[in-house]
Amino acid sequence: MADKTFVALVGMGTVGTGVARLLLDQGDRTARHAGRTLWLNHVVVMNPAKRREMELPGGLLTTDLNRLLNDRSVTIAAHLVGGLEPARSIFLKLLESGKDVVTANKALLAEHGPELFDRARELGRTIAFEASVGGGVPMVVNLSQCFSANRIQSLRGILNGTSNFILTAMDEGGSSYAGALARAQARGFAETDPTMDVDGSDAAQKLSILAHLAFGASTRWRDIARRGIDGLDPADFTFAKNLGYRIKLVASGDLTAGGLHLSVSPRLVRIGTPLAEVRDNYNALSVVGDAVGPVFFHGQGAGQMPTASAVVADMIDIATGRAAITFRNLNWWSSEGPADRIADSKSIASRYYLRFAVPDQPGTLASLAGALGARQVSIASVWQPDSTTPSGQTIPLVILTHLARAGHVAAAVDTIRTMPGGLQVMEQLTILD
Amino acid sequence: MADKTFVALVGMGTVGTGVARLLLDQGDRTARHAGRTLWLNHVVVMNPAKRREMELPGGLLTTDLNRLLNDRSVTIAAHLVGGLEPARSIFLKLLESGKDVVTANKALLAEHGPELFDRARELGRTIAFEASVGGGVPMVVNLSQCFSANRIQSLRGILNGTSNFILTAMDEGGSSYAGALARAQARGFAETDPTMDVDGSDAAQKLSILAHLAFGASTRWRDIARRGIDGLDPADFTFAKNLGYRIKLVASGDLTAGGLHLSVSPRLVRIGTPLAEVRDNYNALSVVGDAVGPVFFHGQGAGQMPTASAVVADMIDIATGRAAITFRNLNWWSSEGPADRIADSKSIASRYYLRFAVPDQPGTLASLAGALGARQVSIASVWQPDSTTPSGQTIPLVILTHLARAGHVAAAVDTIRTMPGGLQVMEQLTILD
Repeated sequence: MADKTFVALVGMGTVGTGVARLLLDQGDRTARHAGRTLWLNHVVVMNPAKRREMELPGGLLTTDLNRLLNDRSVTIAAHLVGGLEPARSIFLKLLESGKDVVTANKALLAEHGPELFDRARELGRTIAFEASVGGGVPMVVNLSQCFSANRIQSLRGILNGTSNFILTAMDEGGSSYAGALARAQARGFAETDPTMDVDGSDAAQKLSILAHLAFGASTRWRDIARRGIDGLDPADFTFAKNLGYRIKLVASGDLTAGGLHLSVSPRLVRIGTPLAEVRDNYNALSVVGDAVGPVFFHGQGAGQMPTASAVVADMIDIATGRAAITFRNLNWWSSEGPADRIADSKSIASRYYLRFAVPDQPGTLASLAGALGARQVSIASVWQPDSTTPSGQTIPLVILTHLARAGHVAAAVDTIRTMPGGLQVMEQLTILD
Repeated sequence: MADKTFVALVGMGTVGTGVARLLLDQGDRTARHAGRTLWLNHVVVMNPAKRREMELPGGLLTTDLNRLLNDRSVTIAAHLVGGLEPARSIFLKLLESGKDVVTANKALLAEHGPELFDRARELGRTIAFEASVGGGVPMVVNLSQCFSANRIQSLRGILNGTSNFILTAMDEGGSSYAGALARAQARGFAETDPTMDVDGSDAAQKLSILAHLAFGASTRWRDIARRGIDGLDPADFTFAKNLGYRIKLVASGDLTAGGLHLSVSPRLVRIGTPLAEVRDNYNALSVVGDAVGPVFFHGQGAGQMPTASAVVADMIDIATGRAAITFRNLNWWSSEGPADRIADSKSIASRYYLRFAVPDQPGTLASLAGALGARQVSIASVWQPDSTTPSGQTIPLVILTHLARAGHVAAAVDTIRTMPGGLQVMEQLTILD
């Protein structure tokens, strides 16, 4: 009989049920990769009466966390509790009772990573967190292990499946934001309260984790400049498509001459490039390393079995000892790390998509061009779309700029807002070519 | 001072030079990931007089393999020698002298994998081979570590950069095969003798390695049904594009009810799906796991620094001990493995693209349809393209079929070939939707 490693789950929601299914029904494959059986000893839940998709063998389910904490035979716990508390306290108790911990909780890592990782190091324990970013797409292993010979120069991710589902519906179906959100909720791709997903917070939390792996950055997620998708107008999707772009919520990290720049925002992404073709609730990551060049990953960023696949792979990596090696060498979220050199966001150069509502009268374009030119923002093209929904006296006007600094564009837009004649700034987005 | 692990290179061609550059110039980043410095002790070459891109520190370069074999302080050797002999003998000597070996030589693994891996196991040594498939795209780690909780159901790869460069030129530029090959050679993307690349052998060797990782298959690469790109006609690229497809050389592995089916062949791939958008000399892999669902990887499949990135990542994985764990647990190419259940290739169902040159006279389509129908091959659509190059009395006719078994299509095509009236079968390709 092969050796056994005793494991446990804390939390049995959607992902926990998937993990239980893989451990209980697919023991052969985990044993083959781990060199031993992962034997599920406890499943700790808050509410034992809750209806569950899956029947567990008798005696596994408990509401008593202490039963797990006191069982010294269990060495690995999958921590599948959402939110910050009691998730954080449970996490610390698991470490303190001698368990290595696998987690899918990106909010917890983004908020309390330094505390949890320092505590794990003090206790000689390991934390694995592949499932916290990208669901089934192995972003953590690829960044921390496969590209170890590289200096990562940039990363761009589509990290929030809910937002991408909504953007796809707006792009392909011409839906309004509200209509697309309702459809995402009906399909189970958006929470009843979707705020953290659609305002860019979830993507910023994941970006803070990836940026730590890729650049060694310790930026707090709240400090990442972010804009969500909730203010987007269907008109811009149509205009963008006519210009050869789709609108995607992109989490970006760029190592610039002035330092690291992190942001989450809707951007125009050129049709035909890999990121632009990421549809529905899929996630993707595009990385450029100085040796490997550009590499792109695409897959299901959430959902029961894709996330469970990542959790169980982490449990196997811990059982074999691989995860402990990586954890020890990379010293993640150590409080001793150097401070990041953060780029001044005003100095970041991008191409811009600017949409204005302009009064249909001579001289308007000249005034616009003058205001932009005065701030060194150079116009690449001007387009006056056929407007199907004329709004009073104004007509839409779209300007694409050459590379321009964010600070210059902001100053020009401020000037334009104060110009007389009813000219309005309707949208400004950066462009990824 | 951090610990050191002493390493060596055998071979200093394009990839070897890239590896030397990373080890010598980027010691900090390897040390951070490995927890120790990888210290380059020897570079063994055949011809010391050869002009090299890079100046090595004095005393490193040698033509004497024994200098490395006898240096017991060196524990890791990157084996960057192409071909089968003396590559195989050198590989065995490295193992026997106590070195773990990193290799990029897929031909050697595809031909002599069982011997090399058995010998490594006997000697307690580790082999790492990320660079043998997919260049900088981490296919080996992803299949063997990240998807360990999955049963892999299918894989489809674009694994030969030379072929993909030529196909892209034929697709986008309308080049002939010969013209596209000449361009690939001029750009350095094709060898002077490109036979192994363009006839599908190189892709079949890589597929045999991936199929072993994904399915546990021990199929010899010569037993994989393969067709290369050298017989393709530019006309089919135009017709395919009109129907919404590109032609790609696809290495496929499918777990079917009848067993495993492996093949390398040019196929029609639907435009807008990730594989269809892989351009130039890029490589890609699309995997479907029963838990993770579809996952797609894309990047540079060859070239100096992408391949060196994979080689150095493997050296780090060996130095840390991660590679030894994986190697021990997965028991790769063990002679004790079970025999594969191989699907009968005649039973494999696909949709087909069939192009005929038909005499421009009534009744031809009826005869064709009759011959296909008699073998249960059902027609999905018929298209008579505008032919810009009419060849005598015949005109092109393209038929797309519904799902049909390979054996049935072959029998129908045999019948059609014998039909009177000058009807010719010009091309038959399977379709990936």
